[in-house]
This record gives sequence, structure tokens and C-alpha cells, in this order.
Amino acid sequence: MSKQSPGLVALVGAGVIGRGWIRVFASAGAKVRLYDQDPAQGPKTLEWLRADMALDEAEGFLAKGEGAAILGRVTLENDLAKAVAGVDWVQESAPEKLPIKQQVFRELDRLCGPETIIASSTSALNIGEIAGGLPGERRCLMAHPFNPPHVLPVVEILGAPGTDPAVLERASAWLKACGQVPVRMKRYERGFLGNRIQAALIREAMWLVENGVADPEAVDAVIRDGLALRWATIGNFGANHANADEGIEQYFSRYGQAYYDMFADLKTDNPRFDSPTLKKIGEMVNRREGVKDVAGLLRRRDVMVKKLRRMKAEMEPKP
Amino acid sequence: MSKQSPGLVALVGAGVIGRGWIRVFASAGAKVRLYDQDPAQGPKTLEWLRADMALDEAEGFLAKGEGAAILGRVTLENDLAKAVAGVDWVQESAPEKLPIKQQVFRELDRLCGPETIIASSTSALNIGEIAGGLPGERRCLMAHPFNPPHVLPVVEILGAPGTDPAVLERASAWLKACGQVPVRMKRYERGFLGNRIQAALIREAMWLVENGVADPEAVDAVIRDGLALRWATIGNFGANHANADEGIEQYFSRYGQAYYDMFADLKTDNPRFDSPTLKKIGEMVNRREGVKDVAGLLRRRDVMVKKLRRMKAEMEPKP
Repeated sequence: MSKQSPGLVALVGAGVIGRGWIRVFASAGAKVRLYDQDPAQGPKTLEWLRADMALDEAEGFLAKGEGAAILGRVTLENDLAKAVAGVDWVQESAPEKLPIKQQVFRELDRLCGPETIIASSTSALNIGEIAGGLPGERRCLMAHPFNPPHVLPVVEILGAPGTDPAVLERASAWLKACGQVPVRMKRYERGFLGNRIQAALIREAMWLVENGVADPEAVDAVIRDGLALRWATIGNFGANHANADEGIEQYFSRYGQAYYDMFADLKTDNPRFDSPTLKKIGEMVNRREGVKDVAGLLRRRDVMVKKLRRMKAEMEPKP
Repeated sequence: MSKQSPGLVALVGAGVIGRGWIRVFASAGAKVRLYDQDPAQGPKTLEWLRADMALDEAEGFLAKGEGAAILGRVTLENDLAKAVAGVDWVQESAPEKLPIKQQVFRELDRLCGPETIIASSTSALNIGEIAGGLPGERRCLMAHPFNPPHVLPVVEILGAPGTDPAVLERASAWLKACGQVPVRMKRYERGFLGNRIQAALIREAMWLVENGVADPEAVDAVIRDGLALRWATIGNFGANHANADEGIEQYFSRYGQAYYDMFADLKTDNPRFDSPTLKKIGEMVNRREGVKDVAGLLRRRDVMVKKLRRMKAEMEPKP
């Protein structure tokens, strides 16, 4: 408990989710061991990371040489037992299938020392089903990142039924020390917090487009240049609180009925997600953002989000 | 049609919504006549505007003296006929009751020259019911702003059944020239675009809190430090498009069923909006944002949103 952040970390799974964790931990000074069942994956991942960080150095998001320093803390390890020996934290990012996750967790629980925290990146499964009943259940938890985690800092945290609350505390404190924003869930719900909220928004946004209320560019502009300017700065509850002179209580006592009327009017039909509409939306996004493809969009998003987070960090209230 | 932006504007109603429009038009160089049924309202509004712009000058969002220049373009006018005589644009921000709006529109249509655009700030009513059947219906439309409009640029645009499409084009072009982001709706739906999307998000966020899935700070952090970082930079559809190597079509063909499962799981119960929960949320927001009250939160939001928009403007793709 004396450590401020994990000093030695094993990442199990070096795919798109696993690779995102490298920078989170290594930037915070941890030594990182990267393991993947496929020995060819690790070198590819390091190559990707090198290129990604070179772009960040070119654009000033990393100091010159910082990428090399981060890579210097990462080693590839093809033996799982050796990868996890003596580490403070194991982050599992195996394929998203319950039997696979269960098997990986059984193995990790057997291989890891008693003080090692074992965290799952699962984006959909119930940690209670992944780790419940293991001898070391007390040190197991879900730590579900957004992607990429060094850009989008939220990590959803949930324990299995037998997880030690002190482990959840330590895991949250460590992630915070690594620059993430850990958010604690109290129980499993399908989609966790982020995907549920996103799903609610997507369903309504798609309904408006598919039913001809407005073009996709109009619907997206309302989010991008309207609602989300508030959400990204003071949150949704902050926006509600700001919407009446005396705050959120007054706001919903005044407009609660108008919201009930609106809720009753929101459709629950599934969007069709038909190809022509989606193709048109993708083209609109590329045109609006001035990019040729998804790779260009990802890069643009990362740059903008990093600038936005830098601004927010400068505006962070002093305690 | 030769004008790039409106040169002479009348604002009818100088309350919280009406006052926001002053800066939009006057900053773009228009002369603005401010009318309110209550002759005491105009001077109060100008006082508020002076103080608001003084803060912006102190913080560098306006150049020194720019506030005075903007105020120099605004005149108070207590006679409605004189206020609207010869103007390019009337923006109606009367109380949100259909009979009142209908009466104001009848009067405005009678008083205004044939080329004057008459726009309603209505946030909930159907412009077809407000302006439908008027002799000058063709130049009437809804232009619903976010608040305050010079900070949150989206304006929802919808015509009455008889509105001339050329008027909608000109209104959109003029608002764009004034720095706003006009978004066109194709038909009336309760809540328009923004409030519907916001309602869908609020319902799910409140459900997660009221049903003990997570604390309000956790739910709001997922929005503020996760989802909205993407939404505010590349929009929701942009985020979907970025989420698969080949874009949004691939994304929803791969995850469409997972979304259908999630949609089926989203509850449609009305939130209770009970006072103790709302009070707790308000306190959490004040603590997190480091403010004492709603006025402090509003100021903080405005500063952060202005910085965010400045960053986005710098990142705007060159055509």
C-alpha cells in the first residue's frame, strides 16, 4: 500500500486494447512487460507504439526523446509465468469471450503472487462471472478503459463479489496517479456506464436521421457544436445545474414535466443501421473533419482531445 | 440577397434569451434595436451586457474597448413599430406560450416590411402553429438558440409550411456570417434535435444514479472525461466512424446486435428527480468545478467553452 503507483506491470494481450495500456503505465514510470499468446504480436505492437509516439513528439505532445524513454521501460515476454512474476499489476486484454477470460483469469490467479492486482479490460462481460470463485478473487477487478486510454482517461472500475474493497481503492488511486480518471461502478449492468449512455444518445441521433427529421450533419452539429461543449467542460449534471438560477433542483422542479413529456416521445425502435445511410454519414464526417480516412480521423481526434484536455487541466480548480 | 449579414436587427423581448442575441448580431457589425414590452427591462439588460463584456475584456475574450463598441451599436426602443421599421431581421424572444407567440407574430407580420425576416427563439413550440397562415408566412421561421448563443453557437432552424426556402437559406447564411452554427430541421418534433438528444442522455444518466449503479460523480465523469471529449471534437457520428478500421458502416455491422441488446436493456421509467438526490448532485458539481454557486459555474463554463471553441477554430480544416 505504500507505493504511489505500480512499479512493475504485466500486460496480457497486446492487441488494440492491450497496446493502449503501455503508455498509461510506462509514462507514469512503471516497467512494463508485454505478453501475447501470439509471439508475433508484441513486436508489431511496439512498432505501432514507436510510430504513434513519434507523431506525438513531432506535434509537441511528447518531449523529444520521451518516446524512446517510454519504450525503454517496455520488454517483450513470451512466457506468461515470467511475465507476471513479481508484478504489482496485471492488465488482461484477451479476446472478449467469457470462457477465454475465465481461463486466462484462472491461470493468472495461479501464477501471480498474492499482492498482485489482476484487472480485466473487458468491455462487456461481468467481472463476477470472470473472476468469481477464484482463490484470489479478492485481488481481481474490472478496469475497462476507453480507447486509447492515454487520450481518453476514463476507466470504469468494478469488483467481483469477493473483491477486497481496499484493492478497489488501491487500483483507483494507482490509475489516478497514472493520469487516468477511474470511475467506480457499484454493480454490473449491461454496457456499464459509458456504453449505456452512448447507446441512449446513438439511438435518438439515428432515429432523427433515419426518420428524416434532419440530415446527419445537422444532428451531429447539435452534439459537436452545442450539447457536447457543455458536457465536455462541466458534465451533463453540471449543465443541468447551470440551467436555472438556483441550480439543478430548481431546474428539474421547473422542467421535470417537460422532460417527462419528451421522454414519452422518444422512440424505442431499433435503428436500421442501413448501409447507404451509414456510408453517407461516414462521408459527411470525413468531409467535415477534412480527413481522407479513418486513420486520419483518429489522428485528428487524438490531437484535438489532447489539446482539449490540456486546456481543462489548466482550468482545473486548485484544491 | 446581396447582404453578407443583417445590417439592422430588432430584438423583441429582452429577457434571458433575447439578451443573448445582442452580442451575436452586434459583434457581427449589425445595428441592434432592443424592444421589450416592459420598458424597465431594456436598461437592465444593457447593464447585464456591459458587466458580462467587461469580464470578457478582463479575460481577453474581447479586446479592450470592444464591449463599448458593441454597446454603441445597440439602441433601446419602446415603440414596437419604430423598433422593427426597415430592419433586415426581427428576432422574437417573447414568453414561451403559444397564444402570446401567435399574437406577437401577427403584430410583427403586420408591422414589418416584406423583405424583413421574422425569426422566433421558441424552444418548444411549433413554428407552423406560431406563423402558419399569416399573410407574410413566407418570411417567418424558427431560429432556436442555445444559451448563451455567443458561447454555444448552434441555432436550430425550421420554417413554417409556407416559409420560402430562399428565406431559410438566407437566414442560415446570415447566422453563419454572425459566427453561429445554423442546423436545419426538416419537420417539427417535440424538443427539436438538441433537447431530444439531451433528454435521452439525461434519462439514462439519472437512471444509473437513482438505481444505485454508480454515484453521480462517476456517471458525470464518464460523460465529461470520456464520451464528451469525442463528441465535442468529432461529434457522435465521427466517434462511431472512428471506432472501426473501415468506419461507421463496419462498426455498426459488427456491433449493431450488441447495440440492439443494449437498447433493449435501457429503461424507460421516468426519473424521480427527487430533491435529496438533486441537491447532492448540485453540491458535487460545485465541489468538482471549484465554484460557490450557479453564477460561478456559468462563468466557468463560458470561459472553458470559449477556450474549447478557440482550439476548435484553430483546428478547423482548410477548405
